[in-house]
Amino acid sequence: MAAEKVYRASTTAPVNIAVVKYWGKRDPKLNLPTNSSLSVTLSQADLRTLTTASCSASYSAAEGDSLILNGEPSDVAGARTQACFRELRTRRAALEAADPSLPKLSTMPVHLVSENNFPTAAGLASSAAGFAALVRAIANLYELPASPSELSKIARQGSGSACRSLFGGYVAWRMGSEADGSDSLADQVAEAAHWPDMRALVLVVSAAKKGVSSTSGMQQTVATSGLFQERISKVVPQNMDLMEKAIKERDFPAFAEVTMRDSNSFHATCADTYPPIFYMNDVSKAAIRAVEAINAAAGRTVAAYTFDAGPNAVIYYLEKDTEAVVGTIHNVLGDIDGWKPAAIEGLKSTVSLDEGVTSTLKAGVSRIIMTGVGEGPIKTDEYLVAEDGTPVKR
Amino acid sequence: MAAEKVYRASTTAPVNIAVVKYWGKRDPKLNLPTNSSLSVTLSQADLRTLTTASCSASYSAAEGDSLILNGEPSDVAGARTQACFRELRTRRAALEAADPSLPKLSTMPVHLVSENNFPTAAGLASSAAGFAALVRAIANLYELPASPSELSKIARQGSGSACRSLFGGYVAWRMGSEADGSDSLADQVAEAAHWPDMRALVLVVSAAKKGVSSTSGMQQTVATSGLFQERISKVVPQNMDLMEKAIKERDFPAFAEVTMRDSNSFHATCADTYPPIFYMNDVSKAAIRAVEAINAAAGRTVAAYTFDAGPNAVIYYLEKDTEAVVGTIHNVLGDIDGWKPAAIEGLKSTVSLDEGVTSTLKAGVSRIIMTGVGEGPIKTDEYLVAEDGTPVKR
Repeated sequence: MAAEKVYRASTTAPVNIAVVKYWGKRDPKLNLPTNSSLSVTLSQADLRTLTTASCSASYSAAEGDSLILNGEPSDVAGARTQACFRELRTRRAALEAADPSLPKLSTMPVHLVSENNFPTAAGLASSAAGFAALVRAIANLYELPASPSELSKIARQGSGSACRSLFGGYVAWRMGSEADGSDSLADQVAEAAHWPDMRALVLVVSAAKKGVSSTSGMQQTVATSGLFQERISKVVPQNMDLMEKAIKERDFPAFAEVTMRDSNSFHATCADTYPPIFYMNDVSKAAIRAVEAINAAAGRTVAAYTFDAGPNAVIYYLEKDTEAVVGTIHNVLGDIDGWKPAAIEGLKSTVSLDEGVTSTLKAGVSRIIMTGVGEGPIKTDEYLVAEDGTPVKR
Repeated sequence: MAAEKVYRASTTAPVNIAVVKYWGKRDPKLNLPTNSSLSVTLSQADLRTLTTASCSASYSAAEGDSLILNGEPSDVAGARTQACFRELRTRRAALEAADPSLPKLSTMPVHLVSENNFPTAAGLASSAAGFAALVRAIANLYELPASPSELSKIARQGSGSACRSLFGGYVAWRMGSEADGSDSLADQVAEAAHWPDMRALVLVVSAAKKGVSSTSGMQQTVATSGLFQERISKVVPQNMDLMEKAIKERDFPAFAEVTMRDSNSFHATCADTYPPIFYMNDVSKAAIRAVEAINAAAGRTVAAYTFDAGPNAVIYYLEKDTEAVVGTIHNVLGDIDGWKPAAIEGLKSTVSLDEGVTSTLKAGVSRIIMTGVGEGPIKTDEYLVAEDGTPVKR
């Protein structure tokens, strides 16, 4: 294999957690959404995918493109992944056509090796980080001049919410109106540095059973919920405006209220689906009651809950309110994994929670993740493919 | 006390469980709803309130009107109860004015004694049966010529859903449009005998804690849910039409689908309330999954779930499908109280439920109630007030 040069590029990419939710496709093939959405990019120090893209004339054309994810071969034949490869190759081929001196990378198989630094079992939306890293790594490999927004259109075709992981900080996915998806892309509302004291505490809740997949769930909601049209035509556009304003003004109470209301609205349309879809369980609801009690005790809004398509609670708060928010949760869940010793040292619990809430959280939360707002994809020299083209053993 | 005559009248009144839900008041004082609703009146053999109304010139005017409910003195000073007394007295006074030979009952204190034949702790909407019985008993005492629909307007002011318990069978509460509530009343869509094989199986679920009261809950939903207007302006009117047609045609699959969708829609608007209201818990959701599994196994719709403002599941089914529906639930919950031996004899379970559903139901359902569709209020000679005006000890 070593006779031919192996071209390599590596990147990391972050997870993002929406505060105005993506739920519903107007075009399932192109992953065009029924509404715009907005997310916070989480810090890659705690949650990230590392992906190395490589290509070489020595790679077997018969075997074609491949992906090793967390040490296991993973299917790349799906239409979503294929769409990403095709879009990226087309752009590389155009560069090669314009400059014949460039190596013909577009004609070579791509081998990808990817790793998450967090357990897949945590039920965090790893596909967003995964597709963002895949697209960014191949774009680096191909030395494409495309902007992050351009790349977001490609990542979107892999997994809708992946388009938001091409940026750090506070990121909007504009739904667009074109049938070909050319204006359905992500842009940055604000950099992480604009409001760097944003923190996120994730309560990982063990689901008894994997719920309905988000792809099929959202299509069922679009097809059957009598309330869904109101969400996409009125509720979300209003929430997008309020949220952008809250972020620009660093207005946490406003940010928190829209975050919680939009999560409620999204899960309401799931409950209104026929048959109904329930991602939240009694543990998730106990987390809501805990946040409400923390805010009531503080006399102002210091914490905001949000839930994706699963039971995990993500609680946003500001660094200055660590004691009120983290102190209270740590007092209840101090025994479980994931706390950062330095971040919880000396915290005194200030709020006592209802006994039913406390016992439900203790019984149902399996892990804590402490993180904050972070950067977009970062190019790195850490390779998961060796110079000879073989996957690095770790 | 015995020197003066004691006038008495007794009635029973039924519980009703809505299949198109009442949720939201456009006028909280008059209990005028934001939308029409439709219910099934349940059999009084299983669930009923018995109320005796009495009045006498010998009753203390200083002590005034009174109510003993399930053996305990109960407050009648609330605006809702007072409105019912006032409306009924006004009508009696008009009769007395027109016919001076009538005794002046309208000037005497009213003593009411009332009993439910089901545990209040079951969390069934006992206020509907209670106010229907109160109004019907006093109307009987006063010998008012008012029709059930006329009386429903009075009962509505006591408790909105009480207006539907003035009729048996299948009952609509027309929201009306007048500001004074004169056209917000109940009428009968079909008698119980029109579709007598309708059955209801109630899974009584123990709530960890009493949730938000429905009066305050519905006002919060009206004030804060971004999806609620869509429910009342589009979803409910369509469900009312579909439901009336399903009942008239005795089309159980259509009845069942509207019942389940409307319950989902109602609970979705609760979840969309800010802060969110959750009446259903993980046990309720397990009951939904059980109904879905029963229908899937039957290859047609044989069961329909609905949930009021609490975690109890009410499952409607037809007598002919007792084996599929009751057999399956009995197989899981055979050990708990409330089964009717004659109704379950020889039932073979036909559907095996998911282990998670089974264990959640076993852990959370505390009692079963087996019943069917029944009649409206029934006049009775069973008195809870003796001839001398004292409450009957039972």
